[in-house]
Amino acid sequence: MKKDALMVLSGGMDSTTMLYEYASQIDLAVTFLYGSNHNARELECARYNCEKLGIELAVINLDFIGEMFHSSLLEGADAVPDGDYDFDNMRSTVVPFRNGIMLAAAAGLAESRGLTTVMIANHAGDHALYPDCRAQFIEAMSAAIKAGTYEGITISAPYTLLTKAQIAERGKLLGVDYGHTYSCYKGREHHCGRCGTCRERREALAAAGIADPTIYDDDDK
Amino acid sequence: MKKDALMVLSGGMDSTTMLYEYASQIDLAVTFLYGSNHNARELECARYNCEKLGIELAVINLDFIGEMFHSSLLEGADAVPDGDYDFDNMRSTVVPFRNGIMLAAAAGLAESRGLTTVMIANHAGDHALYPDCRAQFIEAMSAAIKAGTYEGITISAPYTLLTKAQIAERGKLLGVDYGHTYSCYKGREHHCGRCGTCRERREALAAAGIADPTIYDDDDK
Repeated sequence: MKKDALMVLSGGMDSTTMLYEYASQIDLAVTFLYGSNHNARELECARYNCEKLGIELAVINLDFIGEMFHSSLLEGADAVPDGDYDFDNMRSTVVPFRNGIMLAAAAGLAESRGLTTVMIANHAGDHALYPDCRAQFIEAMSAAIKAGTYEGITISAPYTLLTKAQIAERGKLLGVDYGHTYSCYKGREHHCGRCGTCRERREALAAAGIADPTIYDDDDK
Repeated sequence: MKKDALMVLSGGMDSTTMLYEYASQIDLAVTFLYGSNHNARELECARYNCEKLGIELAVINLDFIGEMFHSSLLEGADAVPDGDYDFDNMRSTVVPFRNGIMLAAAAGLAESRGLTTVMIANHAGDHALYPDCRAQFIEAMSAAIKAGTYEGITISAPYTLLTKAQIAERGKLLGVDYGHTYSCYKGREHHCGRCGTCRERREALAAAGIADPTIYDDDDK
């Protein structure tokens, strides 16, 4: 199969699973640094998995997001709320149009490299909270990128309708080591175990029947 | 009128004219630094006109474009061809999906600031060359931004169907001083007078009946 895809890779569970599942199509992965609390920890994981799979990793600096946008995800560990991954609790962590900005940058780099597809691992669990994770947005953004590039680049987002647990089930079949993925929005060395993304991570791994390799600071489930 | 727009401002003729025409609606202008030959000269012009109109100017760094993308516009003055502003001559100056990236970043900043409209000064003269300047792209990108933001932000691009000469005619009525705009893709202190954008600039000012205030290194018209 031709390697004609560029993939947006955060280093979390979902995009790492996608990297393994679609490795034969991915010519280049891209991680974005945008000043989030957990960016450095994510990048370590992205590097580890790209090296393991022999996929080139580009790192794109979007510092302006951290400097100019407002979000608790950009304002240190203490600003991120504990609790479930529900709307009221996690609304403060939203980074406005983050996926739109990353997809646009990825599309430009893909065109510059002669690649025709941009992959992203948005999934169903994010839809309620993040407008730029929904199928409707991905389709509209794909149409915009197609219209705005010479090669008619499009987006492929094969996890859009999957839950995080369903993604973990795929990872289990693929042998993904989730010890080399990072989720916690607080961004400390170990996962906090209390924020919405840590709870979502634990639940997905448990639902998929995976022995959770994560070290949580708060191990009281 | 409520100031609810963020405008993408390059510092060239077209966006500067739009800044003056729509000043009463523009809360924030944004200039992007992406490593083009003429970025520094454009920024001086953007600063001058924003100060004159009392409009805040944000500067967003997109260095990754200059570092990772391929385009003669990013590779020094000598890489830019002389000649007319036609497809074969100017194709090398294309920066892949530049408007898409700038519009996405502008949309995120607009949402972060509580603004509802992103303005951009693409025009009819660019359509043949740049897919991300065409009405079809602007409409698709507007739909994507609307779908991907909480406030349903949209793009306003009122010059999409105007020629550069028609824009200059509007600037003449508005009293825009085109001596404080910069066009040349070579990016030297004075306009070269020979590249495609210099030729287009001269022709538009002449067609609008404006005495050209520009200093050209090559004044042989």
